[in-house]
Amino acid sequence: MKRREFLKNAALGTAAAGTATAIKAPSVFAKRSYRWRMVTAWPPHFPVLGEGADLLAKWVDQMSGGRLKIHVYGGGELVPPLGIFDAVRHGSAEMGHGAAYYWAGKSPATQFFAAVPFGMNAQQMNAWIYYGNGQKLWDEVYAPFGLQSMPAGNTGVQMGGWFNKEINSAADYKGLKMRIPGLGGKVIAKAGATAILAPGGEIYTDLERGVIDATEWVGPYHDYLMGFYKVAKFYYYPGWHEPGTVLEMFVNKKKFAALPKDLQEIVKTAAARSNVWMLSKFEAVNNSYLKLLISKYHVKLRKFPDSLLKQLKIYSKEVLLDITSKDKMSKKVYDDYSKFQKNAMQWAKVSEIALYNAENL
Amino acid sequence: MKRREFLKNAALGTAAAGTATAIKAPSVFAKRSYRWRMVTAWPPHFPVLGEGADLLAKWVDQMSGGRLKIHVYGGGELVPPLGIFDAVRHGSAEMGHGAAYYWAGKSPATQFFAAVPFGMNAQQMNAWIYYGNGQKLWDEVYAPFGLQSMPAGNTGVQMGGWFNKEINSAADYKGLKMRIPGLGGKVIAKAGATAILAPGGEIYTDLERGVIDATEWVGPYHDYLMGFYKVAKFYYYPGWHEPGTVLEMFVNKKKFAALPKDLQEIVKTAAARSNVWMLSKFEAVNNSYLKLLISKYHVKLRKFPDSLLKQLKIYSKEVLLDITSKDKMSKKVYDDYSKFQKNAMQWAKVSEIALYNAENL
Repeated sequence: MKRREFLKNAALGTAAAGTATAIKAPSVFAKRSYRWRMVTAWPPHFPVLGEGADLLAKWVDQMSGGRLKIHVYGGGELVPPLGIFDAVRHGSAEMGHGAAYYWAGKSPATQFFAAVPFGMNAQQMNAWIYYGNGQKLWDEVYAPFGLQSMPAGNTGVQMGGWFNKEINSAADYKGLKMRIPGLGGKVIAKAGATAILAPGGEIYTDLERGVIDATEWVGPYHDYLMGFYKVAKFYYYPGWHEPGTVLEMFVNKKKFAALPKDLQEIVKTAAARSNVWMLSKFEAVNNSYLKLLISKYHVKLRKFPDSLLKQLKIYSKEVLLDITSKDKMSKKVYDDYSKFQKNAMQWAKVSEIALYNAENL
Repeated sequence: MKRREFLKNAALGTAAAGTATAIKAPSVFAKRSYRWRMVTAWPPHFPVLGEGADLLAKWVDQMSGGRLKIHVYGGGELVPPLGIFDAVRHGSAEMGHGAAYYWAGKSPATQFFAAVPFGMNAQQMNAWIYYGNGQKLWDEVYAPFGLQSMPAGNTGVQMGGWFNKEINSAADYKGLKMRIPGLGGKVIAKAGATAILAPGGEIYTDLERGVIDATEWVGPYHDYLMGFYKVAKFYYYPGWHEPGTVLEMFVNKKKFAALPKDLQEIVKTAAARSNVWMLSKFEAVNNSYLKLLISKYHVKLRKFPDSLLKQLKIYSKEVLLDITSKDKMSKKVYDDYSKFQKNAMQWAKVSEIALYNAENL
């Protein structure tokens, strides 16, 4: 679009004739109603994540005038939390709510649609998925499973985790047993730590009994609810391993295609609203809980030293190279992801980063 | 919510009985259809902003199965761009799409729902509006006009503007004639500059003829389309005066209340989707155009010096104090805004800022 054309449009002053406000004649529809099941990876009504899933279902109900009712199941209520991918795949539920890195065992490329160590933050992930090639690639990764996924929430930048000693260099990771799943776990393993996979319900006791020395979870709000401040002293930031974790809503493609077009669009739009709602809640509540942890529970807030972060970044690149060299689809996705990230970071330097600097002068 | 309760929920493993997938019996609805007019402050189909308004209307049409059709008018087509507030207020259109700072003359407090110099960025604004007190206060500000507004887009951090000389200190603003509207204009006036209000269509010629020495507009994509690179050399960042401008969709409250509940929810949800869509497009395209401006058109990218930014921040505080001391509602809104911003910035330091730093080590 050229400036002249751009301005010509701006200059148009034609007053179009008004149209009638409402068509008075009622139209009669015969519409089928649907009852769907959404299986989630979260405990029932889990703060923010489960609440977001509940809201998504409520909005769909309201927008469809009750024509699409979605019953939301907490993890374990209908199928186990990590059984939701297969449940939706095989049609025993129509819809799932989780995070794409849980399905790394199905296809390693799924991980790029949730969180990548030293990867993109929430705003950048949204830009890649909604406007870049992200959604197209995501569709390609999930197609062999008969599923389609889309963003339906974001945690924002997570915290680095809870430690019972100070972490001053990469050497302090040697021999450390830390609960940390996914790519982050692979990265600290390269630093000599042992990455432990423990479900949410066991972390507190494991930390209390010394089965693990450290853990990460989400952010101040969720970590407060878990009570980690009672069994670990040092709370580290930033969450380099989860810089803006995307929560997903996925559907069985056949069941979705069988919905009328209006209900399909309602589901998609509710997912987008739930995406911005969740990130907004995380952004709004995290700082209050961080302050509470520090002032009331005397948690010691610490930043990972730069030298350590540099080293972890090198390990992260190695981990990503391992994955992309072994899996063609992962390479295809990550090539696009990293190209987008490079551009987004250049833009961040003149926008978000420069603004944060100016505001903190 | 306490840890024990939180974990108890997580541990629940009851398998609820499945429900039938679809209710087979068709239900018959008699539903009225609506034709609405959306008047916008943008040229017809204006990149990103107008596109977002068009998409919003399209999504509402699709979700409602054609029961709510919104005809989108570019600025000047039905009413002038800045006449949309009154047009919707008086019911000659049902819906408007603009930016709240355009209505500062109606009520100065509107400005806090668009952009505040050295204020909150897009993510923080969303958190304040969707989860903090933002929406409630916004409703209060628009209520006397019979309007309700909500976020329906965001530009992200804008650029600082185009100058035909380097800006090395606050002294360089002395005598400078710059096209910059709103609070930003009041701030540079304190630095001795003259803030000029020129509509989009006149800026290029004004800059070419020396009627003005500088201008701000939006970001690299829009500024490229305007061709400013042909008439100004220096392109400054960051856009301290517009750190995350919210674009709004507002409705005539009576007309909105007359819609059935399902259509009301459809409109609200489409606005939220359009909010995240616009920001995503801005985030995705700005860097490519910035690179094009620099590499092909030899634009000189410059950062405002820190000493100047510090001074502008002081002036911004003075401008905000002027407004809030004269207008009760502005004080009420800004007190809440600045409290939220303070918290959000504390959180940004351990999340977004710390992450950006780690990624750029």
